[in-house]
Amino acid sequence: MLAQIGVTGLAVMGANLARNFARNGYTVALHNRSVAKTDALLAAHGDEGAFVRTETLAELVAALETPRRVLIMVKAGAPVDSVIDQLVPLLEAGDIVIDAGNSNFTDTRRREAALAEHDLHFVGVGVSGGEEGALLGPSIMPGGSKESYDALGPMLEKISAKVDGQPCCAWIGTDGAGHFVKMVHNGIEYADMQVIGEAYDLMRSGAGIEPAAQAGIFTEWNRGELASFLIEITAEVLGHVDAKTGKPLVDVIVDSAGQKGTGRWTVQSALDLGSPTSAIAESVFARGLSSQRGQRAIGQEVLAGHEVPVELGADFVEDVRQALFASKLVSYAQGIDMLTAAAKEYDWALKMDEIAALWRGGCIIRAELLKDITKAYAADEAPANLLFAPAFSKAIGEALPAWRRVVSTAVQLGIPVPVFSSSLAYYDGLRRKRLPAALTQGLRDLFGAHTYNRVDMEGTFHTQWSGDKTEVEAVDTH
Amino acid sequence: MLAQIGVTGLAVMGANLARNFARNGYTVALHNRSVAKTDALLAAHGDEGAFVRTETLAELVAALETPRRVLIMVKAGAPVDSVIDQLVPLLEAGDIVIDAGNSNFTDTRRREAALAEHDLHFVGVGVSGGEEGALLGPSIMPGGSKESYDALGPMLEKISAKVDGQPCCAWIGTDGAGHFVKMVHNGIEYADMQVIGEAYDLMRSGAGIEPAAQAGIFTEWNRGELASFLIEITAEVLGHVDAKTGKPLVDVIVDSAGQKGTGRWTVQSALDLGSPTSAIAESVFARGLSSQRGQRAIGQEVLAGHEVPVELGADFVEDVRQALFASKLVSYAQGIDMLTAAAKEYDWALKMDEIAALWRGGCIIRAELLKDITKAYAADEAPANLLFAPAFSKAIGEALPAWRRVVSTAVQLGIPVPVFSSSLAYYDGLRRKRLPAALTQGLRDLFGAHTYNRVDMEGTFHTQWSGDKTEVEAVDTH
Repeated sequence: MLAQIGVTGLAVMGANLARNFARNGYTVALHNRSVAKTDALLAAHGDEGAFVRTETLAELVAALETPRRVLIMVKAGAPVDSVIDQLVPLLEAGDIVIDAGNSNFTDTRRREAALAEHDLHFVGVGVSGGEEGALLGPSIMPGGSKESYDALGPMLEKISAKVDGQPCCAWIGTDGAGHFVKMVHNGIEYADMQVIGEAYDLMRSGAGIEPAAQAGIFTEWNRGELASFLIEITAEVLGHVDAKTGKPLVDVIVDSAGQKGTGRWTVQSALDLGSPTSAIAESVFARGLSSQRGQRAIGQEVLAGHEVPVELGADFVEDVRQALFASKLVSYAQGIDMLTAAAKEYDWALKMDEIAALWRGGCIIRAELLKDITKAYAADEAPANLLFAPAFSKAIGEALPAWRRVVSTAVQLGIPVPVFSSSLAYYDGLRRKRLPAALTQGLRDLFGAHTYNRVDMEGTFHTQWSGDKTEVEAVDTH
Repeated sequence: MLAQIGVTGLAVMGANLARNFARNGYTVALHNRSVAKTDALLAAHGDEGAFVRTETLAELVAALETPRRVLIMVKAGAPVDSVIDQLVPLLEAGDIVIDAGNSNFTDTRRREAALAEHDLHFVGVGVSGGEEGALLGPSIMPGGSKESYDALGPMLEKISAKVDGQPCCAWIGTDGAGHFVKMVHNGIEYADMQVIGEAYDLMRSGAGIEPAAQAGIFTEWNRGELASFLIEITAEVLGHVDAKTGKPLVDVIVDSAGQKGTGRWTVQSALDLGSPTSAIAESVFARGLSSQRGQRAIGQEVLAGHEVPVELGADFVEDVRQALFASKLVSYAQGIDMLTAAAKEYDWALKMDEIAALWRGGCIIRAELLKDITKAYAADEAPANLLFAPAFSKAIGEALPAWRRVVSTAVQLGIPVPVFSSSLAYYDGLRRKRLPAALTQGLRDLFGAHTYNRVDMEGTFHTQWSGDKTEVEAVDTH
């Protein structure tokens, strides 16, 4: 019996995806560079469904029905290219090569174009949900051609998470669109975790609320508009006591978080697109600073604090919750703004409502909030910014007084809240018809003859600063 | 008579550099793709020194003494490669190709390696100072081999700006080091301009101080620790009245500033290096938001403000000055942190004192402050962070109370100060021995088995969250 799909690369994520396919009734051909992993998987879980054991990529390909579907789950970068190079000569026109790892979307675009030359479909698929999600139902973001989705989509939808009976999987767009959207998902995930950290830090360092008590607070928050996977597990982590020391586990863990891969790429891509993803950037940089433990140990010794005592009101915890919610909305707004810019730049027909809908389940950022985002973009006309959708301008407006109080308090107490404050600066900038960038343009015209536009007439102008300071209409010579 | 240097690409920057060489006594061979520009330059400025007119690159090369020095000043990117490709067959071992444009340092590294294969020196040179600086004395940051500097450096030093008799030019380091340092210079320049914009906006929108009066304030500031080219020209721009309308020019200029090239690259490189350049990033994103004028026009209509009235003290302007100074120090600290990381990553022996010294004159960020930075890094042991140098920890500590007041006030007034607040968050993070990144690591371990380190023992650990929650020593399978 021929298999419907082949999986090569059987580390945890690949193995769990293979099992997920099998548990959903598909026959799955298995391959791994070292056969030991294949056999270990079969020994432990071979009874979960129909598997075909293969030892070489040629055997894997031979085991598949046509059009062949080969899913690669290896480390992003050169290993993916290596597997592709080995596969291509074994495949036939119309076959589908799937990269389900966290590849950079620019690599995916390159690979898609290269395989199209061989009449092969290349599908970059974003998969979120971690190891458990891969097994039980992840959120799935496939790119590639629409034609490939006809042959592959139903299978992916079947193994995906479901919310209200709907699969958390939809065709995202051509070539690298799937990996791009997954990347932005991860960028938002960075921000989601950072704002949780800032809330925790404010309640701990500002109000002296211990982790165990905060576990209760986060559990409570998880019942309201913040309801989400990350808030839920924050309660779990904060409530956990380290068996070795009897201390809260969070006090035992080294406070150094790495930044690389998708978080970094999100910000780098946003810069290319000119989209102001400041909240995500601050989250990535907060991890960078967390890793500079040596510098911080010195900083604690030599840098003044000059904290200002602040009487915290009875509503401080509720204020923090609202600040967290507002900051979270900003990071989603920025992520979606970046998707909008990318759709234009890369010619993808991204559907924001479908993307928000498939993030509702299976993935790390799954949250109640995404239902409202789905609704906001399902309307006839998409808002120019998530925050302009009536439900969201109302929600963030209601949180605004608390948000201002919390950031102001943090600034006085000397507690760093880079994303709370950056998000608020973005919000206050977004509602400003005039920004001081006009002065920036004036300076650039003075020192570099960069020219400027005028608010009251068409054209490009330059003031002859080192001459008689008259204004001339400029011919751009740059 | 053979020329000491040839210049190809005679738009304003190339023409002014060529004139600068000639005015300093060098014979300069000129080339441009269209001869008209060459002739125009000779007609206007041919009497300034010794020029050799050439019509082709072959003629240009033939006009030069050996080792030949050919300076390319064309648009960064493909045009540079095109000129290089045409030059290489015309040159001999030991000749020096100089790229004085704003090339990305990764391109410079690639080109240096490629030309080394032909026994040619390739020198990426950062040049700052705009058109006027190019003519009268820029700040010059040459990379490339030390050997090439022996043949080229004296000429570059001669045409560079001088401070206290010292040239604002020094060998930066191998391959792309010169362009990298110039890129970071430009990143700092973005932040310098943004904090000036935030100060201006606070005094205008917060305290109602009109541009003409602010021109006087910036002139006054330019006499103290903020003394710098950008503060000086801010006074000039703010004091300038538009002849067409009688309004302050700054009110007539469209408030949309582009972000691309070196500012963007600085942040993208910082992300690759894991260095938290949040102030520079916020400056780049502030430009991005400024360009989203359509969104801001809507935002002004639909987003609530809920500003909190704040009684501004008599010292508000002085507070703003101190906040600007503190934020500026942070952006320099972050820029230098990134240089430190780059030196390690790319194996460059960057000398921070020499870099700070050559930024003292000629370039856009030239400032009194750079004298103290030079001193801080001339000490036997470099501080782990600029802010840890005694002079700077003292200076920023003194500014801190005002800085906190200003950010808190801005937050309440609803005036966006993304760099003032981001810099303060960085400062407050830098002086924290513990950050909430420990919670981030706990969350990542729960949803992705990413593991964590413990503060009290060696090793990598994982809590079995979905099992009995015991902790196991982890073998990283990722």
